[in-house]
Amino acid sequence: MSKTNAGRFFEDYRLGEVIHHAVPRTVSGGERAMYHALYPARGALYSSDAFAQSCGLSESPMDDLIAFHLVFGKTVPDISLNAVANLGYAEGRWLRPVWPGDTLRSSSEVIGLKQNSNGKSGVVWVRTTGRNQHGEAVLEYVRWVMVRRRAEGDAPATVIPELAKSVAANDLVIPEGLDFSEYDFEQAGEAHRFGDYAIGEVIDHVDGVTIEEAEHMMATRLWQNTAKVHFDATNRADGQRLIYGGHVISLARALSFNGLANAQMMVALNGGAHANPCFSGDTVRAWSEVLDKAETDAPGVGAIRLRLVATKGKIGEWKTDDGKYHPSVLLDLDYWALLPV
Amino acid sequence: MSKTNAGRFFEDYRLGEVIHHAVPRTVSGGERAMYHALYPARGALYSSDAFAQSCGLSESPMDDLIAFHLVFGKTVPDISLNAVANLGYAEGRWLRPVWPGDTLRSSSEVIGLKQNSNGKSGVVWVRTTGRNQHGEAVLEYVRWVMVRRRAEGDAPATVIPELAKSVAANDLVIPEGLDFSEYDFEQAGEAHRFGDYAIGEVIDHVDGVTIEEAEHMMATRLWQNTAKVHFDATNRADGQRLIYGGHVISLARALSFNGLANAQMMVALNGGAHANPCFSGDTVRAWSEVLDKAETDAPGVGAIRLRLVATKGKIGEWKTDDGKYHPSVLLDLDYWALLPV
Amino acid sequence: MSKTNAGRFFEDYRLGEVIHHAVPRTVSGGERAMYHALYPARGALYSSDAFAQSCGLSESPMDDLIAFHLVFGKTVPDISLNAVANLGYAEGRWLRPVWPGDTLRSSSEVIGLKQNSNGKSGVVWVRTTGRNQHGEAVLEYVRWVMVRRRAEGDAPATVIPELAKSVAANDLVIPEGLDFSEYDFEQAGEAHRFGDYAIGEVIDHVDGVTIEEAEHMMATRLWQNTAKVHFDATNRADGQRLIYGGHVISLARALSFNGLANAQMMVALNGGAHANPCFSGDTVRAWSEVLDKAETDAPGVGAIRLRLVATKGKIGEWKTDDGKYHPSVLLDLDYWALLPV
Repeated sequence: MSKTNAGRFFEDYRLGEVIHHAVPRTVSGGERAMYHALYPARGALYSSDAFAQSCGLSESPMDDLIAFHLVFGKTVPDISLNAVANLGYAEGRWLRPVWPGDTLRSSSEVIGLKQNSNGKSGVVWVRTTGRNQHGEAVLEYVRWVMVRRRAEGDAPATVIPELAKSVAANDLVIPEGLDFSEYDFEQAGEAHRFGDYAIGEVIDHVDGVTIEEAEHMMATRLWQNTAKVHFDATNRADGQRLIYGGHVISLARALSFNGLANAQMMVALNGGAHANPCFSGDTVRAWSEVLDKAETDAPGVGAIRLRLVATKGKIGEWKTDDGKYHPSVLLDLDYWALLPV
Repeated sequence: MSKTNAGRFFEDYRLGEVIHHAVPRTVSGGERAMYHALYPARGALYSSDAFAQSCGLSESPMDDLIAFHLVFGKTVPDISLNAVANLGYAEGRWLRPVWPGDTLRSSSEVIGLKQNSNGKSGVVWVRTTGRNQHGEAVLEYVRWVMVRRRAEGDAPATVIPELAKSVAANDLVIPEGLDFSEYDFEQAGEAHRFGDYAIGEVIDHVDGVTIEEAEHMMATRLWQNTAKVHFDATNRADGQRLIYGGHVISLARALSFNGLANAQMMVALNGGAHANPCFSGDTVRAWSEVLDKAETDAPGVGAIRLRLVATKGKIGEWKTDDGKYHPSVLLDLDYWALLPV
Repeated sequence: MSKTNAGRFFEDYRLGEVIHHAVPRTVSGGERAMYHALYPARGALYSSDAFAQSCGLSESPMDDLIAFHLVFGKTVPDISLNAVANLGYAEGRWLRPVWPGDTLRSSSEVIGLKQNSNGKSGVVWVRTTGRNQHGEAVLEYVRWVMVRRRAEGDAPATVIPELAKSVAANDLVIPEGLDFSEYDFEQAGEAHRFGDYAIGEVIDHVDGVTIEEAEHMMATRLWQNTAKVHFDATNRADGQRLIYGGHVISLARALSFNGLANAQMMVALNGGAHANPCFSGDTVRAWSEVLDKAETDAPGVGAIRLRLVATKGKIGEWKTDDGKYHPSVLLDLDYWALLPV
């Protein structure tokens, strides 16, 4: 009858159930300032009210990844406290900007279950939705994790959801009013526009950042993700604290400014893998590959589909002969962003 | 005739004098974001405007411990710069919420003096009051410290104030409008309410956090507590920076969310001891003991008196045979909090 | 045809050209809170709306050095990415306060060029101006750096601008409405006023702060200065990250509160040298020398010209027999500040 949360185990999930995650959160310029201190983020739309206004928005929204981390962080106590592995993401879409002053909450629907053949764990698929104080959805995504069973027992019926390989360009949601027809390339930092990127093109983002313990812990706590594996040096035999995968996402995305300064807003998360663990002391670099491009109905706004790879090794290292990620690869993320045409 | 502040010595204090501490401070969402980055704080009332509004407040106030640290930090240059030891706290009460935009100042009245028999130091008792920009008291507490004499000399008359062992339940100040009758336990994170806690019950808060130098220094500076012992690695022979005791208070209180998620607001500080020093690299854990419970006049609001213990060792370690704290115990804090009935 | 920014080389600068630097930035209470966490800053005017209002301002402006770092940070990708050395500052003036909610951008005019005799590098002088969202100048300063050539080639005509040794007292811009006639010395933290400081007087600011990697990286990123030398531990053969010189400026200025608590606002930057590099683990101390004093037209407001020196050694260490800075000296800054008469 412990009062503390031991987390859910595989047998605690029921297909179709909706879990309302705890601790709503109001965001402000404080979270934005912390984000700028934690990551080399320079995207003009998330840095400047004046720039955002020149793009048709009322003010600068919170960075898309702030929204992602906040929504994700709330799910950790219910979804991944007993997770063995975070297996993947799919069908992620940003549906509405998050503004300073907004309060976010999140919930997850269990959409898939598959017990492993060893009977000791299983895979749980959830579709998570983040909502603002008006009940409007701001973000949704599917995530699947491998979770331990508390005890062996009968397997539930196996249900594996059908998931799109990527979000179709037609399904991207463009923020209301967004207009890049008067886009200021000089203030944004680079001249490259929609037409300058070719499918298949690879961009080395050049810069590297060496990670410190204090930084990744502050970042992870900021999103109220308090899973002990990120904070307690006595938790692993090697005394290392595992860095929250989302920290690597934000770091790589910020590094990608150098070459993708105009890929302003993330609008879809097609997929992603945390290929290898990241630890304090690792120097993270990033490269991107252009996977696809699409036009949109919004004035001056195009969409670009990108593979974003974070590595602690050399940019060229990617997959080994057996198809696995090279040990230096940390992240392989597939997303859509908006940029001026 | 140095222009710098050498701090006060024992012989500089006069019974009854009131010291107005310097550097008023305006707080905003920035301080709240930093607090969330520095501590695993997840209390819903201090995280969400929407949640605070559902509890009858106009918006989310600043965390009680932000108020405490700000008021305390201002006293350091006048009270504890030459302190040998921070001996205790008593009769602490939060009197009014601190809202974003408020400006805090603090003052202390000397209420007790007792020179030590060695003639080289003495104990000073002060009652400190924090006030907002309207002159309204937001927090008061008694604190006593051992302070060096500048030179030997006649002892002042010994006056030891009579201090309550704990704040009486009747004297707790409930924030105006607070109403837990529509309390959302799901969003708060736990189902346990007033009736679920038994006096004498002990709760192990499970999680641990390993502290880094950068974190405790940023935390301590945030409250404008600039005592060199926390910042200057050359100050002690062992090259270690002593961690501000308040950092351990905030860390332990945040950890106690796991089991006490609904103990939303601190309303009284009955007593406290910084049992042993804390250093970078320590992994801090916490446990709580329910000391008392009381009803209040506010709708749906009960009060719970808790002992909060922070340790860098095992949860079971407490006091040694001679009655002293086990060397692993960092903090022993006695406080009242409000929770839903 | 790389899409990433390789920075400008000496031959890329043309006399008289104006470079508009990228990424405008809106500031808020979040940046202020971060500043208080990063530096032991206690100046009352930048800490409290109530104090600022008692000095005739509408609210507390952002710290002068926040304005400086933001304006400077934007210039890095265009001016100093390929710099061998940051040689000096001159003719710096704060022209208008920066308020929470303001959006800053900056531009630089090339005002001098001189190729080095080796033909491999040259010195570039720029006059940088920071502007708010209304186009009003908030800060201007001259800076000169030594920059590599991409390839050897013809030298441009040598133009060395004439720069004032210091900003004349008559040219200092006092913020509109500033009035120190009701100045609250008790809340400001010290009693020393204009008349208490003598030209030639030296003040040891006593305290020391040991710097951590996480701190200087967060500070530097906060200003969107992402030059890899500050972040990538693999960039130098010795594995050390070079600390942004501005971090040392802010640290020293904050330390100078102890003895100069009433030197509230910086209004001119007469000159400055980053005498030696600073690294994580260094313990920084500071001392000041009063260089000059002047009256102003604003009620109760005087000006004081100060040399601010940061050192990682002893306070007495200054210059060696050959006139060079002692290896322990980190910073030698010459500025004007405003204080009550």
